[in-house]
Amino acid sequence: MPKSYEFPLTFVAMNEEKGFDPTHNPWKTVSSQPVYENPWIRVREDKIINPSGNPGIYGVVSFKNLALGIIPLDADNNTWLVGQYRYSLNEWSWEIPMGGGPMGRDVLESAQRELKEETGYTAARWTNIMRIHTSNSVTDEVGYVFLAEELTPGDVEPEETEQLVVKKLPLAEAIAWVMEERITDSISIAGLLKVARLKGL
Amino acid sequence: MPKSYEFPLTFVAMNEEKGFDPTHNPWKTVSSQPVYENPWIRVREDKIINPSGNPGIYGVVSFKNLALGIIPLDADNNTWLVGQYRYSLNEWSWEIPMGGGPMGRDVLESAQRELKEETGYTAARWTNIMRIHTSNSVTDEVGYVFLAEELTPGDVEPEETEQLVVKKLPLAEAIAWVMEERITDSISIAGLLKVARLKGL
Repeated sequence: MPKSYEFPLTFVAMNEEKGFDPTHNPWKTVSSQPVYENPWIRVREDKIINPSGNPGIYGVVSFKNLALGIIPLDADNNTWLVGQYRYSLNEWSWEIPMGGGPMGRDVLESAQRELKEETGYTAARWTNIMRIHTSNSVTDEVGYVFLAEELTPGDVEPEETEQLVVKKLPLAEAIAWVMEERITDSISIAGLLKVARLKGL
Repeated sequence: MPKSYEFPLTFVAMNEEKGFDPTHNPWKTVSSQPVYENPWIRVREDKIINPSGNPGIYGVVSFKNLALGIIPLDADNNTWLVGQYRYSLNEWSWEIPMGGGPMGRDVLESAQRELKEETGYTAARWTNIMRIHTSNSVTDEVGYVFLAEELTPGDVEPEETEQLVVKKLPLAEAIAWVMEERITDSISIAGLLKVARLKGL
């Protein structure tokens, strides 16, 4: 649930006059039917009453894991990108190191494990820089992006199903790849542009 | 399919030595079974052989529409955000004006219709600034973000199912909302931070 401070006071005041409360869910769920499940997602179809009061359906894709993105940054402002062929897209994708974090497990620990698996690096300084909803018209997927600094190299521990290419490059070049649309993954674009702004790059 | 220019020459040369071709899909589809469909998505489960040569399954959520985000910008550097309660998240969300563009219909026309529906504005100058994949581990959803300038106000034409709040604010303030995590939608974060960079804001 959103916290009240997410709503500017002027907005709340303006809309309270109209009897409108942004923390109130104007959708009604009439019934909910599971339609598919695998180890990563659950799909359900809800019968709903929409905010206008009319009946309809809503198909919701629920994720069993959080999406965790990590932007490693060394003392010389280099970062690492991971390239892989994405099955869902049928297309190659350059991304920040990324993986799924099991719900209920410590988010930071999952991010640390993922960075180690994909790049071999451990980091002494971690900053959670972003909460992001990837595709909120249909999914409930939530991602967190971490900035990982003060790096120490080590051995990589790739997952069995992955075939990854890991590339070290200046953060400025990774940002250029975002601007040139060489990077299309939403968490990578959002995370890299936010780090660029935080670091004044 | 990605175009070859997306791969830097050094990367291609380096990996050709290892017999690695980034345009080649290393996943094999053994069979494909539809499991759910509604007017907006199709879900299928594929039996696959993963890049390591081992069998498994892949559940893919295909979207029937493109995701279109529009960042209107007036001569005084104001923009417009749209607030709505997102059913999938059970949470309020501030976003750039956004909507679905039917496949096979002109993307720019769909974006123009969406801006008009949600804000009433038409724009004389449109720039496509981003191709984005929202959640590529499971979905094939593709989005495009447009910058819409030289605006003319008009009447709004909201869709029947939507209950939207439209807010005019300086683009600089919308960027601040991104940095403060008041905006969590991936297309909105990515689009606003890219426009900030393009405009030197």
